[in-house]
Amino acid sequence: MGLRVLGVDPGLTRCGVGVVDIAADRTAVLVDVTVIRTDPAMPLEQRVLAIAEGVALLLDLHRPDVVALERVFAQNNVRTVMGTAQASGVVLHAAAARGLAVALHTPSEVKAAVTGHGGADKKQVTAMVQRILRLDAPPTPADAADALALAICHGWRRGAVVAPNAGGSEGLTPAQRAWRAAEKSAAAPRVER
Amino acid sequence: MGLRVLGVDPGLTRCGVGVVDIAADRTAVLVDVTVIRTDPAMPLEQRVLAIAEGVALLLDLHRPDVVALERVFAQNNVRTVMGTAQASGVVLHAAAARGLAVALHTPSEVKAAVTGHGGADKKQVTAMVQRILRLDAPPTPADAADALALAICHGWRRGAVVAPNAGGSEGLTPAQRAWRAAEKSAAAPRVER
Repeated sequence: MGLRVLGVDPGLTRCGVGVVDIAADRTAVLVDVTVIRTDPAMPLEQRVLAIAEGVALLLDLHRPDVVALERVFAQNNVRTVMGTAQASGVVLHAAAARGLAVALHTPSEVKAAVTGHGGADKKQVTAMVQRILRLDAPPTPADAADALALAICHGWRRGAVVAPNAGGSEGLTPAQRAWRAAEKSAAAPRVER
Repeated sequence: MGLRVLGVDPGLTRCGVGVVDIAADRTAVLVDVTVIRTDPAMPLEQRVLAIAEGVALLLDLHRPDVVALERVFAQNNVRTVMGTAQASGVVLHAAAARGLAVALHTPSEVKAAVTGHGGADKKQVTAMVQRILRLDAPPTPADAADALALAICHGWRRGAVVAPNAGGSEGLTPAQRAWRAAEKSAAAPRVER
């Protein structure tokens, strides 16, 4: 039973969107990846509209099970953070309007999930995304790789979350037990350093 | 020739929306004022959706000529600023999807426009909004008064902007000259202190 996750690295100038199918054994397959761009010279409301329409189109095209969105903090880059949050707002809206839940993940959660450590740099994240998805070339630009990493992170973390009783398999449904077994047999690959 | 302005004081818990008709002689008439509220216990995407749907409903109901939105800064209250910016995002989207421009005004611009000084407190803004709109009671809560103040500020400032040559009336259209005359005959009332 696979999970289709649409990941979004929000931004007004570049908004990365990556769609990944994640199987119960953690295998991840690329479905689509793109970057929605808007011209900084356009009026703000037109830029926000373009992001909203682009995300809506991709949601309707790929029909994901869930949306994974980067959690933005006010302490981040002050020059761009408000635009990033405004882009997040329309992503949250587009998902909820389609009955989809949105999972928020911090950059360090995403880095830890795909590389094994929360302080990984963009190059390491890109390299691991390429390896996990078995791509011929690294995804570019960084916003595209980040969106894919978000989707992978959510698919993998969600697997861990369905079995809250980490000690045993009592009280689990058959599906949860199958998931748990898959979890045990598959470990996240790690980047060499 | 009047201008209908829909002002929004964005927020996730309380989003103030005020609609005001502003005549060329600066007379302002209340059309509607409301506060869209969402439960902080709801999932974030459901809260954002509720704000988006509420604003869309009011835009379709009142068909304003323009939207005035409070400009949010990353330096503002760090605890709530991201939610405020996310709410701003869906307001920008709702306006642009209807072909409306969005004017951003800072809190101090709004205070200066309605009270005469940018450092006015909430009580002074509320009192002036009540006086300008000739209301029997002060608009409550503060988010409602702020949304009305934004709408008034935009209507009044826009009047000043159509005549960039502040010295004389050379090169102005007849409409601009009429507006200039109205501008001169009407001064923003000031709150007594």
